[in-house]
Parts: sequence; structure tokens; C-alpha cells
Amino acid sequence: MVKVGIVGGTGYTGVELLRLLALHEQAEVVFITSRAECGRRVDDLFPNLRGHYDLAFSNPDVKKLAACDIVFFATPHNVAMNLVPELLAAGTRVIDLSADYRIRDAQLWSQWYGEPHASPELLSTAVYGLPEVNREKIAQAQLIACPGCYPTSVQLGFIPLLAKGLVDPLQLIASSASGVSGAGRQAKIDNLLSEASDSYKAYAVAGHRHLPEIEQGLSDIAGTDVAVTFVPHLLPIIRGIHSTLYAQLCQPVEDLQDLFESWYADEPFVDVLPAGVFPQTRTVKGSNRCQISVARPQNRDTVVVMVVEDNLVKGASGQAIQNMNIMLGLPEAMGLANLGLAP
Amino acid sequence: MVKVGIVGGTGYTGVELLRLLALHEQAEVVFITSRAECGRRVDDLFPNLRGHYDLAFSNPDVKKLAACDIVFFATPHNVAMNLVPELLAAGTRVIDLSADYRIRDAQLWSQWYGEPHASPELLSTAVYGLPEVNREKIAQAQLIACPGCYPTSVQLGFIPLLAKGLVDPLQLIASSASGVSGAGRQAKIDNLLSEASDSYKAYAVAGHRHLPEIEQGLSDIAGTDVAVTFVPHLLPIIRGIHSTLYAQLCQPVEDLQDLFESWYADEPFVDVLPAGVFPQTRTVKGSNRCQISVARPQNRDTVVVMVVEDNLVKGASGQAIQNMNIMLGLPEAMGLANLGLAP
Amino acid sequence: MVKVGIVGGTGYTGVELLRLLALHEQAEVVFITSRAECGRRVDDLFPNLRGHYDLAFSNPDVKKLAACDIVFFATPHNVAMNLVPELLAAGTRVIDLSADYRIRDAQLWSQWYGEPHASPELLSTAVYGLPEVNREKIAQAQLIACPGCYPTSVQLGFIPLLAKGLVDPLQLIASSASGVSGAGRQAKIDNLLSEASDSYKAYAVAGHRHLPEIEQGLSDIAGTDVAVTFVPHLLPIIRGIHSTLYAQLCQPVEDLQDLFESWYADEPFVDVLPAGVFPQTRTVKGSNRCQISVARPQNRDTVVVMVVEDNLVKGASGQAIQNMNIMLGLPEAMGLANLGLAP
Amino acid sequence: MVKVGIVGGTGYTGVELLRLLALHEQAEVVFITSRAECGRRVDDLFPNLRGHYDLAFSNPDVKKLAACDIVFFATPHNVAMNLVPELLAAGTRVIDLSADYRIRDAQLWSQWYGEPHASPELLSTAVYGLPEVNREKIAQAQLIACPGCYPTSVQLGFIPLLAKGLVDPLQLIASSASGVSGAGRQAKIDNLLSEASDSYKAYAVAGHRHLPEIEQGLSDIAGTDVAVTFVPHLLPIIRGIHSTLYAQLCQPVEDLQDLFESWYADEPFVDVLPAGVFPQTRTVKGSNRCQISVARPQNRDTVVVMVVEDNLVKGASGQAIQNMNIMLGLPEAMGLANLGLAP
Repeated sequence: MVKVGIVGGTGYTGVELLRLLALHEQAEVVFITSRAECGRRVDDLFPNLRGHYDLAFSNPDVKKLAACDIVFFATPHNVAMNLVPELLAAGTRVIDLSADYRIRDAQLWSQWYGEPHASPELLSTAVYGLPEVNREKIAQAQLIACPGCYPTSVQLGFIPLLAKGLVDPLQLIASSASGVSGAGRQAKIDNLLSEASDSYKAYAVAGHRHLPEIEQGLSDIAGTDVAVTFVPHLLPIIRGIHSTLYAQLCQPVEDLQDLFESWYADEPFVDVLPAGVFPQTRTVKGSNRCQISVARPQNRDTVVVMVVEDNLVKGASGQAIQNMNIMLGLPEAMGLANLGLAP
Repeated sequence: MVKVGIVGGTGYTGVELLRLLALHEQAEVVFITSRAECGRRVDDLFPNLRGHYDLAFSNPDVKKLAACDIVFFATPHNVAMNLVPELLAAGTRVIDLSADYRIRDAQLWSQWYGEPHASPELLSTAVYGLPEVNREKIAQAQLIACPGCYPTSVQLGFIPLLAKGLVDPLQLIASSASGVSGAGRQAKIDNLLSEASDSYKAYAVAGHRHLPEIEQGLSDIAGTDVAVTFVPHLLPIIRGIHSTLYAQLCQPVEDLQDLFESWYADEPFVDVLPAGVFPQTRTVKGSNRCQISVARPQNRDTVVVMVVEDNLVKGASGQAIQNMNIMLGLPEAMGLANLGLAP
Repeated sequence: MVKVGIVGGTGYTGVELLRLLALHEQAEVVFITSRAECGRRVDDLFPNLRGHYDLAFSNPDVKKLAACDIVFFATPHNVAMNLVPELLAAGTRVIDLSADYRIRDAQLWSQWYGEPHASPELLSTAVYGLPEVNREKIAQAQLIACPGCYPTSVQLGFIPLLAKGLVDPLQLIASSASGVSGAGRQAKIDNLLSEASDSYKAYAVAGHRHLPEIEQGLSDIAGTDVAVTFVPHLLPIIRGIHSTLYAQLCQPVEDLQDLFESWYADEPFVDVLPAGVFPQTRTVKGSNRCQISVARPQNRDTVVVMVVEDNLVKGASGQAIQNMNIMLGLPEAMGLANLGLAP
Repeated sequence: MVKVGIVGGTGYTGVELLRLLALHEQAEVVFITSRAECGRRVDDLFPNLRGHYDLAFSNPDVKKLAACDIVFFATPHNVAMNLVPELLAAGTRVIDLSADYRIRDAQLWSQWYGEPHASPELLSTAVYGLPEVNREKIAQAQLIACPGCYPTSVQLGFIPLLAKGLVDPLQLIASSASGVSGAGRQAKIDNLLSEASDSYKAYAVAGHRHLPEIEQGLSDIAGTDVAVTFVPHLLPIIRGIHSTLYAQLCQPVEDLQDLFESWYADEPFVDVLPAGVFPQTRTVKGSNRCQISVARPQNRDTVVVMVVEDNLVKGASGQAIQNMNIMLGLPEAMGLANLGLAP
């Protein structure tokens, strides 16, 4: 059994790692940290885990983490970048679900996150953990920067179009919507049921921290600069991201449906829907699946791509486990077989 | 008191007319039709009306409708166009909340609604009931085609930009989202709580019936052809439309915030929010108000406009009453003072 | 115009007072306090108020409050009891929406609220503001203790049965459910959309602070001791309380429907539904109405009473305004005509 | 592999069987019926099944069903009772998720379901599939009547109290609440999101069809007549039942917590929560688990038991698979390991 450590186990990506790993045949969570809940059983805080874990939260302890085969950081940004160097030095593999190692340019990172990066020397070591792009590198990596929830959906939707050079890379629009769990398990008035339910709004229109990550990833694919207008919205649901992507065709195109189906034909967790069928977030709720549709309304030059995922699974903890499986040479889908919970 | 008749009173726009007119100081609903519920008291079907109405549904009767001062059609399309000619001939004023008279071109109408128009000769007579555009014509009209819920939000958002010629009219994108009440009070599996709640999806991506209405209205403003990519989405809420609009600037622009504030300065029901404040659907829930924000992310050339309204009020029944007030020379805001129900 | 002051204007009962008073013909809010939001415009915090108020939050100032004709306390418990003595001394009328003056026994109050009462001498002066019980006393009162949201629904449902001595006063069960707004506008993890939506639970089963208030009120009616098993539940909705009440018949009864209809025949805000029709919280959303049904399943000896109200209106701010109207000799329903927002 | 047939695969219990059986190691769905969707792929109707099934709906065919090892009826009542005799005669095992064989008294059944029973001779053969009561009989059964969703929760909560004779069997109250999926995947206006969301109501107060089933089961346990006042409520959530049970203690009791923990100590799918912790429906969402708490407020004589389950899993399809596992000698928990999907 692979010994797993988790740093920051009280947030939604933490409990989602616990939910998924509880049924993973080759991994066992042996250590989980939380300063605030130190000493409390994990199944007391999260009663859905009862019967599956005999484990309590501990204060962070680098030695105990280093003794694990693999450590997940399910923390806000600014935690991993301080602890990871020591873990890597000890030979431990690390999968960071936070933003600390996602952006290769330390200066750009500082600009968006408002502080200097604590371990910029590792930025070039870290592998961006989007298996559909970097599967081979992930298999060799010691440090994975797990993609953000929005960036996963936006990149998977635009990639086939940009890779083929079919659309204008400087006029991309991502109109995305996320369930409230994306904001984390933190006490904020804005995310109370009384504030966020029965409503819908855009936010962070002036600039969301996922924008540079999206543009970096898409620029790698396009081989040129890209510019994305990214407008995130808050959905009155718990889980789920839906990205509606708009791009301008810049050359003749034959069959977009066929392009997408071919591109993702061998991907275990990307499912291109039949022509004319559009994705719903509920269909992938609780599963590690991304579902995609492509359309060209009125046969005009604007292509529309729709992408759904569960932000806590394919957008975070499920993808992290997918990365772990690849790193460890396990079957990529191990522990990730769950179907979407619909209805 | 103005005598009001309502055709088709069992749907959501019907009961919303009843809710709003119950407190209107100058109007009284004297006749309301429904074949299916003929004989049933309106407050038995809609218990929120108890104490406000002593009225039952009747079978349609043109003479009784013609005896009203004004008749609202709160019906699906294909009802008004058969009854309106007789009512107009009798001198009755008509406000049609359905799509029957919204599109001036009878052939285009038939193309989208799949049948011949029954009274095409009235299409040029009908005034499109968007007060922010047609207030003077409305005051003189005998027949009003009340705008669709999506078209109201999309037009109000794009109008200042197109009127000033600031954006490319052929590259407009409207990424809109509506609460489920927009689908009406009809028994459809897709709109069950178990299907539509806790989820989000795009629909009618290939072409929604509101598209030609949107393009007709915006073309009038722009004075040239316009092309809109319109993608509607279904929100797991009851009431509310949020349109996120994207346009490409085609000439230098000074102050978008000032443009929008000036444009709508005198409008009683369009509220431009301060710079950096973005609208939420809940803020206008139950009120006849449209709230708008404009932004220019990263100072690039893509303008983003966000518009919210209650689809049943400013998007339907409230706007219909606003039209009635204008037609009858009453204060435009009479009966429409309600604030948004937040939280 | 009546000059109104509000202490604690940033919570849900505060903004609901503002929403309702905006359209009240005889009252004007002239002063509103909040330490945290001092200097901020009320319509900046609550954009549904835009266009209706030109007012900002101020620090509490007893002189300015005393200059008002009437002051509402929309605060947590423990605020009013410190400020009210000075206001009463100045001749200002006070309506306290908090729990400070609801329980006549200072010792019992301390037992449930965990601290000594700051102005116990006023407990016998305060009038419990349930108009259906105390209308005459309210008209003469200078200090009103506005009932809690749960107690309003539970008392209105049990009163006719207990007043007539039909049921065992020692075996009353109140299985109540409230929307999340009842927990206030406070940043608590438990009330996040991600925690509270798509779920349902009982809470405070061992003892909720509304229990002694319920038992005090019902005991007054019954003229004897009462014992209520009160189990509150959290509903994944914003507004609304539904109380399902169970009582054991202890003597023959003729017509429960008739009893309830007669009892509340003259009440403007209590609506007994026809036999066999059961109330829904949505029907009273946003309105000051309480709707009630009574049933006797299987014709056995257990009576079931169902009561709905909007916890922020008839359960708080609407009832407070109803009290104000009575105190000031205004029409009792002034400013409270709104119908329920359904759908 | 066990060959499984499903009759009526287009409803929520049908798709839930498909979701759960997709990952069952020893069972394979080989035949599934639907007249309305005959010929349509199951993963076209339910896209969460994509990649897991290569199966289409067929018209009912008794021979093909009889060729299965086990057949589930996921139908409304009145279907199974006509087909089951032939299947039993062919030696096929049957698990009926409908109400057809739940009530042993054919006359009582007819009284509640409004028609004669089509195969009353099988009523004594059928085993009521509540494993916590009938595990041994289930292992020997050829025909299982799978319990209703409400009855599962109500019985599991009352059983320890009645078995020990601690409470008055004639004064039981079950105040239950169910998510909308309990009403099935049928097009009914009452269950539209616009009608059922953001609201709460009691229904079927005069008598719900699950009442005789509840009383029959509890009477078996108590060894005497029981009378239950059962009031179901509709929750604005998709999945989940919460039953709040009230009973009157009729003899001294020592430790209710200990009683419940002991009673269910060996049950794999009944989880008694620690004292003072109350269940939430979300904790068991998607899992086959029932969680229970017991309390005695104010130390008075009314006991309160709270029970949650997912109505589609432990309340229907999961319990059906649990029965299948027992019948076939498989590990009882096979295919049912999923944790609750929280948040």
C-alpha cells in the first residue's frame, strides 16, 4: 500500500481526497494535518467518512510527512511553497493542489498572489498535472502542480482548436460558472446559503487568479501568445463547473465534432458528447469525468465549446489522484471509477 | 378604474400579472380566461392571491374581453395572433406577452415558429414594447408586442455600445442564463426539481427563438446588420436572468461607465451600478428593475456587460404593466414600486 | 411622517425593515446604526435598496435615536436591554426584535441566554408583540418585545386548541423547519451554501432558546402549565418557517376547521386555508401573512396543525411594523400589503 | 456473473440500480425494459452511464426476463403483481421495489391502492426486504418486497424502542421529509423546480400509502397494534429522507444511546451517531447508509429519534442490491461501499 499524507485536511479538497482514497485499493492515508482541528477524528468533522477511517488530524510535522510515499497539499496558496523543498529533499513525492507551482514565471506569480514566491527554484521542476497534456512528464515527476478547477475546464475545451490553429488565439472568451464549493470551506458572508442561493452573479471580472494559468497553458498549446477574456460566475449549486467557451474561426474547418472526438478518443476521463447533446454539471457530479460538446451556431464563425466537470473531482482531488496513479505506475483510473450521481 | 382582461391566466406570467395588479391603484382585473381551470377561483390555484381577488377563471369569450379597456395575453405563442384582430376592431387595447407580434417579418416569424402567421397585417401596427427604446410609440399604440425575457436583457446591455458605434456589430456574444420559470408552468420532465436543480447546462445552442428578436432590435439601434451568438443556459433558480455580453471595441473609447450612466440616467427601471459593482439576480427578484454593469477586463478590447432582471417582471409581466401605464397616461411606475426581495 | 430609527441595520431583519419601510406611506427611516459599516451607504451594502434611500450607517448615538418617534432594535440579544432604558426615559417608543424582553422571568432569561439581564425592571413593562393576542396592550405600549420567528408560528397554531381546552397541554409537539436566513447574516461555516443546501437536519434538539418563549405564551393561553417538545430543523431555503404541530385531543371535538376559521376570522394577517389544503412556505414569501391548516389524520386523536410564515416578515420585521402601526394608531396593514412572491 | 434484468428502467430507482450495478463485481445487467424508450441506449437517456453500459431499453419480454438470474422491478405499483407469477414459476428470483407485495393483507392493499391485487396468493410468499429485520428469510426468499423509502427510515428508528416495549405503541408520530426524487421521474407541475424549490410543505396528511406498511412492520416488532401519525413533507432537495420520530416513554429507561448503539452494532448499513450529534441528509447522499440519533429533550417523556437515508439508495435501489447480495450469498456490502457525497 502507498502511504499517503495530506496537508490541510479540513477543506473541501481535503475531505474529497479522503472520500476518494477511502476506496482506493493501493493507497492508504496515514497522516493528515490541521492546526485548527488537531486531535479531532476526521470522521467526527466529516461524518460521511464514518467507518472508513480511524484517523485524527495532527499538527503539521515535516518528518512524518516525509515518511509518506506521497503527500498531497490541499491548502490555500502560500503553504506548499514553504514546505515542499524539504519534502522533495527527503525524496517524497508531492502533489500540490494549490496554486503555488502552477505558474512558471515567479514574477507573474507574485503579481497575482501579492507576495514573493518562497521556493522559485522549484518552479521549473514542477510538472503541470494536466494528464491530457503532460502524461509522460507526470510519470517522471517528483512535484506536481495540480491545475486549478477553472483552468482544467477551459484548457480542455480550447486545446483541440488551438492545437490545430483553427481559431484566433487573441480573441478567446471563457464564460465560466462554478458551484460555491469552489470558494472553499471558509466562513464568508458572501457564500452563505442566504446570500448565494437562488441567485447568480459574475465576479472577479477585472481579473481572476486563474487567468494567467489559463493563458500560460493555452499559449503552450498554441505556440504563440493567447489572450482570454475570462469571466467567472457563481452558481447556486455545491459542485460543478460549466465553461462556455467562444472562439473565432480563422480558417476553414471541416468537422469540429470529429476533431474533438478524435482528439480525446483515448482519454479515460474526457468524454466528448454526441453532436447536439450538451453537457450538464449534474451528470459528472462526484465523478472524475469531464464532458465536452462543440457547436457552431447558425454556421457562423463563432465556435462554442461547452465543458463540465466536478470542480472537486476532475477539477481538484480526483485529478490529483489521477496524477498519483500515473506517478506511481498504477492503473490511471484506480479509485476513480465512480459514476456521476444523477439525479 | 381601468378594466383589465387576461387571456391565459394559469401560467407564470399570468399569476405574476395578478400579483402585481392586485396592488395597482388604477387597474382592476375583471376577466381572466383558462379553458383547463374554467370555474376555479384564481386564489384556489394560486393561494398567494387569497384575500385579493374574488374572481374565477372563465372560458375565453371575445365579447367579454372586448369589453375590457385593456387585454393582456399571457399565453404561449399562436393564441394572440388569432384573437387580437377582433379585439383591435372593437377598440380594445392589447398587450401581448407572447412572441406573436415581436418580429416584423412574417416569413422570418414562420421560419422560427414553424407555422404561418395568422394576422400578418398587424405586424407593422404592433409596437415593440421596450419603453427604453419606444416610449413615445407605446403611448400611441393600440397593440404592444411585449419583449421576450432574454431579449430585454440583451438589448438593454448592448444598446449604448451599438448606438454609439463603439463595437463590432457582427461579433456580439450573449451568454445568458435564466431561472426555470422562464420555461413556464408546464409539466416537463426536464424542468422537474430532480432534473434541473443542483445543475447547470446550456440549451438551444443551435438556435433559440429569441435570437431573431434580439437581432432585429439591435439592428434597429445599430442602423446596420448585427450578428449575435446567443447561448442560453438554465439556472437552478426560479426567477432571474443574467446576461453576460461580450463585444469587440472597434474604436477608441473614453469612459464606458459614464456612457452607460448617461444613457440610462432618466430611466426609472434601468439602474447602472457603480464601477466595479456587478449585478446579482437576487437583487432584482420580484421587482421591475434591470441592473447593469460594464467592464473592460485587462483593458483589452473585449467589453463585458452584465445585465440582470427578473424574467417574470421586467422580463414579462412588470414590463407589460409598464407599457400599460404608458399607454394609458398613468405614471409609468404605478404598481411597480416593489423592491427586490433580498435575501 | 413618523421618524424611525433602526439599531443594527446590517442583518437580515434590518434590511427587511428597510425594504418594507421604503414603501410605507407614513414612516421614514432617518437614522440607522452599524459600527462595522459606519459611513457606508445602506444601498451600497444592499443594492435592492438603490433609489429608495439616501442614508448611510452611523455609529450608535442615543441622542439621535431618542429624537426618533420610534426605534427598532434589529440586533442580536444583549444590545437592546442596555440602551432601551435611556430611550424610554426620553419618551421614545421602542420595538425590540431581539429576545431581550420576551421572557418575563429574568432568572429564566438568564438561564437560557447565559448572562444577567441588564434591565430586568422593564420586563413587566414590555408588551409581547403578538397582535393576535395582545392588540389592545400593544396600542398602549411604549416597549414591545417582538416575538421570535418560531414562537410566532407555533403559538398561532396551538392557540385555538389550547384556548378551548381541547388538547393535552403537557404533550405538545412542535416539529418546525426554518430557512437559513433565520440564522442571521453572520459568517458561519454551517450556513454556507455548500454545507446547508441540498440537505436537511434537526438542530438544537436538546433545547432551543425559543422554547421558554413558546411555553410562556402558550401557558398564558391555556391558563395552566404546558410542555412542548420543540425540534427545529434547517431547511435549504432562504426564507420561510413551516411548523408541523401535533397535539392529543383530550375531549370530544366537533369541527376543527370551523374552530380555526372562526378564531382567526377578523385577523388581517392570519389566513386559515380551506379544509384539505395545506400551506407551503413559498406562498407567503415576502408577505406578512401566516397561513394555517388543521387536520385529524385517520380520525384518530392526534391533531395536526400546519403553519407557515416568512420568518423575516410575519416572523420578524413585518410583525414589528404591524406593531408600530398599532402603537401609532395607523391602519394595521399599512405598508404590509405585499403578496407572497410565488413562484 | 449474476445476470440481472430490470423492469422499468427509466425512472429514478431504475437509473440508480444501473449506477450502482455498473460497479458491482458479481452482477451484470443484461436486459432492461421500457416501452416508451424502447430501442434507446440507456446512456443516451442517462449520460452519467456513458462508458459503463452497452445496452438499450427493450420492450418487456417475460422469456428474456425469466432467463435472468434475478429481476428487479423498478416500476410503479400494479406492474410487478401481473408479471411476477410467471417469473417465479420459471425459477427466477424477483426483487420488487414497488408496493405490490409489501402488505400481507390483500384487502388492505386494495383499500390503499384502489384496485384488486392481481396475485394475492403470493403475498404470503413474499419476504419483506428489510435486512435489519428479516436477514435470514431474505437469504431463502425467491420474492422480495423491497420496503418503501419512508417506511425504511421510520421502522429503523422506532424498532429498538418498540422491541423493548419502552414506548406507547398507540401514540407514535413520524414527521418525515423527503427530497423530490421520491415522487419519481414523472412530468407533474407540482414537482417542477419552479414549484417545489425554495419552499416546503406537508402533503398527504389525510393518509399516505406508506402508512399501512409502516404500521404492519412496527406491529410485527411490537407484538401488538400500533398507531402512527405519519406526516410526510416535501423537501426542496433531490435526494434524502429525514424522519423525525416522536414517542412517549411508558416505562423507566436507562440509556437510550446505549440501546440504539447495541441494537445496531452489527449492522453494516445502520450507523448510530454519537450522543448529541444529529444526522443530516447530505451525509448519506449516494450511499446505502442510514444514520440515526436519539434524544430526550429536557429529560421529559417524549423521545425524539432522527433518521436519515438516501431515499434512492437505502430507501430503494441500494437496499434492493443489499437484498440481492443476501439472496445470492454474496458479501452483503458488495457494490455498496460508496461514501456519502458531502459536500
